[in-house]
Amino acid sequence: ARPRVGYFYSGKKNADLFGESLRKLRVRDYKSVPTVIEETSSAYDAVVTLFTEDVGTLIVVRSGQLVGVVSRKDLLKVAIGGNDIHKVPVSLVMTRTPNVVTVDVDASLYDAAVLMMRHEVDSLPVVRDSGNEVVGRVSKTTITRAFVELGQYRDV
Amino acid sequence: ARPRVGYFYSGKKNADLFGESLRKLRVRDYKSVPTVIEETSSAYDAVVTLFTEDVGTLIVVRSGQLVGVVSRKDLLKVAIGGNDIHKVPVSLVMTRTPNVVTVDVDASLYDAAVLMMRHEVDSLPVVRDSGNEVVGRVSKTTITRAFVELGQYRDV
Repeated sequence: ARPRVGYFYSGKKNADLFGESLRKLRVRDYKSVPTVIEETSSAYDAVVTLFTEDVGTLIVVRSGQLVGVVSRKDLLKVAIGGNDIHKVPVSLVMTRTPNVVTVDVDASLYDAAVLMMRHEVDSLPVVRDSGNEVVGRVSKTTITRAFVELGQYRDV
Repeated sequence: ARPRVGYFYSGKKNADLFGESLRKLRVRDYKSVPTVIEETSSAYDAVVTLFTEDVGTLIVVRSGQLVGVVSRKDLLKVAIGGNDIHKVPVSLVMTRTPNVVTVDVDASLYDAAVLMMRHEVDSLPVVRDSGNEVVGRVSKTTITRAFVELGQYRDV
């Protein structure tokens, strides 16, 4: 049961605390390991890696630096296009920097969610100092996991 | 600035209100229009529909009733398998009921998020009376949208 003093708060006020708590969650604490592939790989290699890692998007790197991202959607398009996906390099299929939306490791998870909604992407490479050094990834799965965690708080 | 009375609440207590507010969100209020395809369609038709509707998963129906779901992942698998996807029916590729995880329209969005995490799926058909009548869909995008909305509450 909530203490009576709680009635001084309106529903709106609770919602404010809510938003504040949510915005405190950090990308740093929720990011997962980045799933990367070298830009010299074939589209076929990318498909295999997508399945073995069971992710929706791969981060494409050159010497460990972000050069692009490639999604199930990109690969499905090339696979049905009648191309030999063993011969098509992933670099031809990927979304290329600077068109890749990234999030800084010091950003909030809320910022990451806003970026994914605004740019209509399912995941973001997590970078350091807004550069091209990839240190993780966040996705709509990450947000869903955080949402479940927040919903688990119960009244005492 | 928060009223001093707020200090009677510990951080934990705020978190409790948080969880309570989150669990009040309903599937009914957040669901989107279901993107469906007839089970007699080809895998190729399914790919085209995925692109035109820009969704990750299609709900497969017979006479308006749920019979399965088919994802980008399912279609990517068949596309690289060397099959003629114009000839493969979507019913051969889909996940079939009763193996499809659904959520009732009267459930909470929290329940939907828990189901997606537990069963490792990206979206759920929304059904009425836990039956096979499809009335919508929720996905990790739906959860991300709700997360952004909750984070927008500001202190007054």
